[in-house]
Amino acid sequence: MVLDSDLMDLKTPSLLLDAPRLQKNLQFMGQKLAAADIDLQPHMKTAKSVPIARMATEGHSGAITVSTVKEAEEFAKAGFSKITYAVGLAPHKLGRIAALLQRFPNLTLCLLVDNPGAIAAAAEAGQIFNRTFPLFLEIDSGAQRGGLRSDDPKLLGLAQQIARTQHVSLAGVLTHAGQSYAARNRQELLQIADQERLSAFGAAGLIRGLGLSCPAVSIGSTPTLWAAESFTGATEARPGVYMFMDVFQAQLGCCQIEDIALSVLATVIGRYEKPARLLIDAGALALSQDRSTALQARHPGRLDYGLGMVCDLHGQPFPDLLVAQAHQEHGFIVSRTPETTALPAWPIGYRVRIFPIHACMTAAAYQDYIMIENGAVTGTLPRFNGW
Amino acid sequence: MVLDSDLMDLKTPSLLLDAPRLQKNLQFMGQKLAAADIDLQPHMKTAKSVPIARMATEGHSGAITVSTVKEAEEFAKAGFSKITYAVGLAPHKLGRIAALLQRFPNLTLCLLVDNPGAIAAAAEAGQIFNRTFPLFLEIDSGAQRGGLRSDDPKLLGLAQQIARTQHVSLAGVLTHAGQSYAARNRQELLQIADQERLSAFGAAGLIRGLGLSCPAVSIGSTPTLWAAESFTGATEARPGVYMFMDVFQAQLGCCQIEDIALSVLATVIGRYEKPARLLIDAGALALSQDRSTALQARHPGRLDYGLGMVCDLHGQPFPDLLVAQAHQEHGFIVSRTPETTALPAWPIGYRVRIFPIHACMTAAAYQDYIMIENGAVTGTLPRFNGW
Repeated sequence: MVLDSDLMDLKTPSLLLDAPRLQKNLQFMGQKLAAADIDLQPHMKTAKSVPIARMATEGHSGAITVSTVKEAEEFAKAGFSKITYAVGLAPHKLGRIAALLQRFPNLTLCLLVDNPGAIAAAAEAGQIFNRTFPLFLEIDSGAQRGGLRSDDPKLLGLAQQIARTQHVSLAGVLTHAGQSYAARNRQELLQIADQERLSAFGAAGLIRGLGLSCPAVSIGSTPTLWAAESFTGATEARPGVYMFMDVFQAQLGCCQIEDIALSVLATVIGRYEKPARLLIDAGALALSQDRSTALQARHPGRLDYGLGMVCDLHGQPFPDLLVAQAHQEHGFIVSRTPETTALPAWPIGYRVRIFPIHACMTAAAYQDYIMIENGAVTGTLPRFNGW
Repeated sequence: MVLDSDLMDLKTPSLLLDAPRLQKNLQFMGQKLAAADIDLQPHMKTAKSVPIARMATEGHSGAITVSTVKEAEEFAKAGFSKITYAVGLAPHKLGRIAALLQRFPNLTLCLLVDNPGAIAAAAEAGQIFNRTFPLFLEIDSGAQRGGLRSDDPKLLGLAQQIARTQHVSLAGVLTHAGQSYAARNRQELLQIADQERLSAFGAAGLIRGLGLSCPAVSIGSTPTLWAAESFTGATEARPGVYMFMDVFQAQLGCCQIEDIALSVLATVIGRYEKPARLLIDAGALALSQDRSTALQARHPGRLDYGLGMVCDLHGQPFPDLLVAQAHQEHGFIVSRTPETTALPAWPIGYRVRIFPIHACMTAAAYQDYIMIENGAVTGTLPRFNGW
């Protein structure tokens, strides 16, 4: 029996995090990677929460991944001593990074580069601050975001530049197969997972072939790690959204709806006809404006959930409803079958939970997670935002 | 001569607010409404900043509008004594609202209702807390968000319910012509402005025809107030985004690009071919995922600026560039003419400013505004977020 009286007392919108689901998601990934002898270095860009980072690193080395210098600072303060800052380095950030290292001398902070200027800047900062910066070379394994293709001759040039330059060292190669988000089925995910791993492993092999040390081969998006059947050649992995999951990941096949741990608690504030709609007090800020499932809906069997999947307080979805649009503080719940009668007869004040389309975006509007277990509130966990 | 050395020293991403442009925007709206004897009660949902609220209310009564209880609390703490909470009331929020009124006995906090249950809930809370809640009736003047049409017979029923109920009073009628965002030209904006004003004025007339008091007629979206040539019948107005303006408002015709006061300072972190793109360190969180200009681009003479308009440090746009897509911390600058040669030869570390598509959404990711004047940093102003 679910106790939902707690959920009736919370302010709305609030960000709920289902503790057992979080645990289950953490365990699945933690155990799968541990079994493959891959160090899970969870990407904290999604959760941005120290206690969650502690949970997520259990059974692994304790190393984590971050997307901003702010995250590096916050997690270093909390005692994390090995952090990879996995966004291409802007040289001016080295001053702040050096200050962090000065404050935490035992911190190993790996940086990401894919061009000679960033390496030179890191070396220069290393000289000034008397530090050696460990650098990952970014490999583009098909995502077409940052990095070099593993067969790009410039890659070896960069490895050699690092090898002959003081105050920098090669930590390894790192890639993120973001194209996994466009996969249509598990078979495609499996292919992309292989492509991701083999690109990085291949790049490491070319570098090692020069007689250079390339210790780490870092891979990982949540979908490719979920699908992967082989990890040969990889040494570490950096998934992030797997902790919370979301509607997009569920439709990609990487989890069930019942695994989505994050939701936004909202209240019905209006009910209207022509066009038939229910207004809730969770809008574009509370849910984010991520519409990733609109792209998924081009594939058979996947639906556009707009800005969120509508569920009851027990987390049971109403399959016919979606948050079709939003203004800043208003969300519009509509039916897929656009008839007034298809909308449930919820009164003003009725509460719903909205499963996020993209958990990383939705969570970013909040300062804390309200932890729930079987519908009861068990506490809060802090998160931070900003740069 | 613009001094941009300050802008080279700031962390990126940062949120910049151009003080002279802010002042100009505030003055335009403040003076236009003062000349029409309309009280400007600026909607603070965009700026969420106490000092900006003080500037925006200069020359007017000092009343403001908010979109969340948190905003009401923050502005009440700062000494604002007349606040309209202009989102349909969820009854459970009355406890927190009553606590705020207990703490600030001189605060007048107007609430928004459009259904009998919300009125009854306000009356009940008023009795418990020995308060009279001033209520606005929400009118739907065509936006199809909340409220009742001015000719809906239920409207008079609600006015009568308020009149005969203790602990609530009718503050007036309130409407927001959000459909103005879809207007194609000034002529259409003018028509919508009339529709907005006449809907609200008409509703007030019907209520007054019953012999009931309906003191305020509150109107306002930035586009309709910008276009309006008559304010007859209105008493107050609640624009918000006019303070900052954005690319959407500029394309709607409500300002020039040179009036956009808000921008995100970002750094180039990568440059790639196939497909040609520049990566910046301002992504989906730093810019928001608002893509409103994609809809505008269906009309001749308007362009899709994706997630932001790319400008140099002086705020001069590069008309051929846009932020076409973003990941959490990566923005992708591409050219409208998709040839590598069309991308400027900016090195890693080069800085740009991105004008936001929708200022309300972009600002929400930040905790403060970095104030600039002629490219020099003159200070910071705080803002807050959350609920």
